[in-house]
Amino acid sequence: MASPVASAALKARVSRPSMLKKLCRPEDLLHHFPNGAYIGWSGFTGVGYPKKMPTFLADHVEKNNLQGKLRYTLFVGASSGAETENRWAALDMIERRSPHQVGKSIAKGINEGRIKFFDKHLSMFPVDLVYGFYTKDRPSNKLDVVVVEASEIKEDGSIVPGASVGATPELIQLADKIIVEVNTAIPSFDGLHDITMTDLPPRRKPYLIMGVEDRIGTTSIPIDPEKVVGVIESDYQDQTTHNTPADENSRAIANHLIEFFEHEVKHGRMPKSLLPLQSGIGNIANAVIGGLSESNFWNLKVWTEVIQDTFLDLFDSGRLDFATATSVRFSPEGFKRFYDNWEAYRNKLLLRSQQVSNSPEIIRRLGVIGMNTPVEVDIYAHANSTNVMGSRMLNGLGGSADFLRSSKYSIMHTPSTRPSKTDPIGVSCIVPMCTHVDQTEHDLDVVVTETGLADVRGLSPRERARVIIDKCSHEEYRPILKDYFEKAEFECLKKGWGHEPHLLFNSFDMHKALLEEGSMRKISKW
Amino acid sequence: MASPVASAALKARVSRPSMLKKLCRPEDLLHHFPNGAYIGWSGFTGVGYPKKMPTFLADHVEKNNLQGKLRYTLFVGASSGAETENRWAALDMIERRSPHQVGKSIAKGINEGRIKFFDKHLSMFPVDLVYGFYTKDRPSNKLDVVVVEASEIKEDGSIVPGASVGATPELIQLADKIIVEVNTAIPSFDGLHDITMTDLPPRRKPYLIMGVEDRIGTTSIPIDPEKVVGVIESDYQDQTTHNTPADENSRAIANHLIEFFEHEVKHGRMPKSLLPLQSGIGNIANAVIGGLSESNFWNLKVWTEVIQDTFLDLFDSGRLDFATATSVRFSPEGFKRFYDNWEAYRNKLLLRSQQVSNSPEIIRRLGVIGMNTPVEVDIYAHANSTNVMGSRMLNGLGGSADFLRSSKYSIMHTPSTRPSKTDPIGVSCIVPMCTHVDQTEHDLDVVVTETGLADVRGLSPRERARVIIDKCSHEEYRPILKDYFEKAEFECLKKGWGHEPHLLFNSFDMHKALLEEGSMRKISKW
Repeated sequence: MASPVASAALKARVSRPSMLKKLCRPEDLLHHFPNGAYIGWSGFTGVGYPKKMPTFLADHVEKNNLQGKLRYTLFVGASSGAETENRWAALDMIERRSPHQVGKSIAKGINEGRIKFFDKHLSMFPVDLVYGFYTKDRPSNKLDVVVVEASEIKEDGSIVPGASVGATPELIQLADKIIVEVNTAIPSFDGLHDITMTDLPPRRKPYLIMGVEDRIGTTSIPIDPEKVVGVIESDYQDQTTHNTPADENSRAIANHLIEFFEHEVKHGRMPKSLLPLQSGIGNIANAVIGGLSESNFWNLKVWTEVIQDTFLDLFDSGRLDFATATSVRFSPEGFKRFYDNWEAYRNKLLLRSQQVSNSPEIIRRLGVIGMNTPVEVDIYAHANSTNVMGSRMLNGLGGSADFLRSSKYSIMHTPSTRPSKTDPIGVSCIVPMCTHVDQTEHDLDVVVTETGLADVRGLSPRERARVIIDKCSHEEYRPILKDYFEKAEFECLKKGWGHEPHLLFNSFDMHKALLEEGSMRKISKW
Repeated sequence: MASPVASAALKARVSRPSMLKKLCRPEDLLHHFPNGAYIGWSGFTGVGYPKKMPTFLADHVEKNNLQGKLRYTLFVGASSGAETENRWAALDMIERRSPHQVGKSIAKGINEGRIKFFDKHLSMFPVDLVYGFYTKDRPSNKLDVVVVEASEIKEDGSIVPGASVGATPELIQLADKIIVEVNTAIPSFDGLHDITMTDLPPRRKPYLIMGVEDRIGTTSIPIDPEKVVGVIESDYQDQTTHNTPADENSRAIANHLIEFFEHEVKHGRMPKSLLPLQSGIGNIANAVIGGLSESNFWNLKVWTEVIQDTFLDLFDSGRLDFATATSVRFSPEGFKRFYDNWEAYRNKLLLRSQQVSNSPEIIRRLGVIGMNTPVEVDIYAHANSTNVMGSRMLNGLGGSADFLRSSKYSIMHTPSTRPSKTDPIGVSCIVPMCTHVDQTEHDLDVVVTETGLADVRGLSPRERARVIIDKCSHEEYRPILKDYFEKAEFECLKKGWGHEPHLLFNSFDMHKALLEEGSMRKISKW
């Protein structure tokens, strides 16, 4: 089969002739994907991932009934697109996956034991990869093949990523073979990235970033052209979904937080323009950023993992001066707005590798305000970000612990309850003891729900429990939690082990009531 | 009462005349310590703490039956000397304490609810202090009085600490009034320190340390002389205890670790001279450092929190090139050896603030090998470093999470069992679920006991559980843990939530057996 002919659009994006010569179709590259291969993809939070090659491989498996016969170890900076990794999971093509994922089929595969998944701090995953920790049992210590999306290939062969950087620099560093998908359906993102590669200790250097707008790297990812085994033209956009709108609860949470920021500014603990903001994904995050768009805070800056639609509103309100992250994950309308106003946004945005966006070094130095949503928080301010009932994986740790450990302000925001199948408030997000701990009591400064904000800085565990129950728990659960705490306090102080009182053998009884009676509030007694 | 006359020894240590004029006796300073005062002391791991003023105050309370009537909030970088803070606790003089402590009376006060204690990452505590987080409810935002030990006062009024730096720079930054105890019973430590102060964001700067021997600060702590309300001559040494010798188990652990290091070097993941070592306190740590003194590793370097006697052996063996920490905590003989060979050691040692010694920024950059001992580790590689039975505080988090989160190699070493009151192996240190989590599964790379080493890098939780039970658990507990895991796996996979299988409502049954039957192995069934 003859090589495909490069389109004009593609030629405009590929300045290096030798790369154009490698133009091929996905089917020409099938032999690079034997069963058991270790594969890396670009991408982060469902943007900037390769589309053609993964889709072709999925079609290939489906068409030829190869389910369970082509299984791969798949490393992507965070989640990829549903039509790629989730489809792979549905076709039983994933043997092992790290460090994060989104999708029903992949979660099912993990929780039914077919997919070996481990979640690692997103800042650390690419570094451990370069250390060889995840390929240590392979003869070559390498990844067999890495597929990356580019929005442009430069004359020196280096690639300009699309809407995310993620772990692409490190995946490329560790790749044995590289496939580049040049996406001509999106504009070139040239100039929007700040790229750094990873050195090994003892040769690592400081990240000389002292402000969110500081540039320390290059605008494209250097690549060894001899490793490139194929270039594919890709012609469709990142398949993102719509944003979750703010609801009444999330607006109440946002109001508590904005009041707290005002309080901190008033007492001189924060500058008037606040400190760089980190905000997660979801309706609470959207409400917080939305609330700031109507606040009295100006000259704001953002140091975060993912930039979403509401940040465009914050830019447009004139309140946001600069934002940096490892991906821009807009909704389809958000991307249109972004591309249509490219000139207005491009000098106020910088995308970095996830190792840098989530770097504890920089987060701590800049004094970031870190905000995340957990599965549950306990009365002593531990939080579960990953495993429902201690066992069922949702998406993975993500950058939650990168930010919440190192931020100046470490904030967990959550509705006080969630619905169970039979009770609209059947799940209390404030529990006696977390069934899985990702953030420790030593990490969190503030817990906030729609009912109020608990500022636990400098408090002993027993003081913390009182203020968290009082301010953050739903009124229906408040007496239940109080009862737990008071009984635990009484029992443990009596025994002389009352620093952090627990009724250890009943600490999950609310979870038991949920499981057996359909609602945590159906607990009969402690 | 006339001012005391400065001894010749004191004059030799105080180059600033105005400071000599402030010479006084502890009793002259009593009025600076009203009930409810916020107090800071220098000191870290029982060295470099003030001795005269705290002892005088304890005598004063004892003599005048003021127990419970003079109660203070006490901040020290880590633990202080037993004859000071522990005695204060026994005399009910401590209202609140952070971030770490050692001593029977103080632990008793905390666990019986008289002392409000919170433990915070040692790297973060001094920063949060400067942020005003721990004084936010006070009108002045300051500490009332800070008492620091100095081994010398320089002409510019700056002070040269003794055997520790700890949180002294930040305590001094936040002090309203300062009392200096010049200790003439120890040599001047001039030149042994590398002092940096703490800036507030957005003005914080990178720590430009790229090797353990890099100096980035000054040799003494700048001080506002107008804040100094008194200078006291102190004339006795840090009251340290003897080291715990290595036993058979700890030597076996050390051997496993050295074998692991050799394996990593062989596979090119570590240089021949290893990477900077961090080692905690206790007999396992002593065995590991002792083992290295007889190993084939040369040109070693140490980046740690506390330097102990065994490091002197490692220096003397010719294998250690440089060591840096925030304190040198030698035994009485160790200090003698250190002082007697001052010239041999002083150019190979540097003491920094705990914010720097425990800095995630630097630990990650240097690729430290971090090693700590927990209370218990669970089968999925979470660890409890602080609370026995989830509730009873031992000493506090210390720097364990600073190092274990950010190290290149994050290692937990523990004997596989400890004795209970009635059973020499009544407590398994490998448990189904930790009763308190300080280190998460996302942090640890290696778990090691005398029975073996579990390398859990890149493993999914279920793979981790198998290798930890297999390699690290005591043979008596292995079938019990296997049984738990297999039942949990069966139950959870069946329900489709088997990522990290737990029998949630039985996960602490081994602890229950310990409590009710005196031994964890007396568990009847899962």
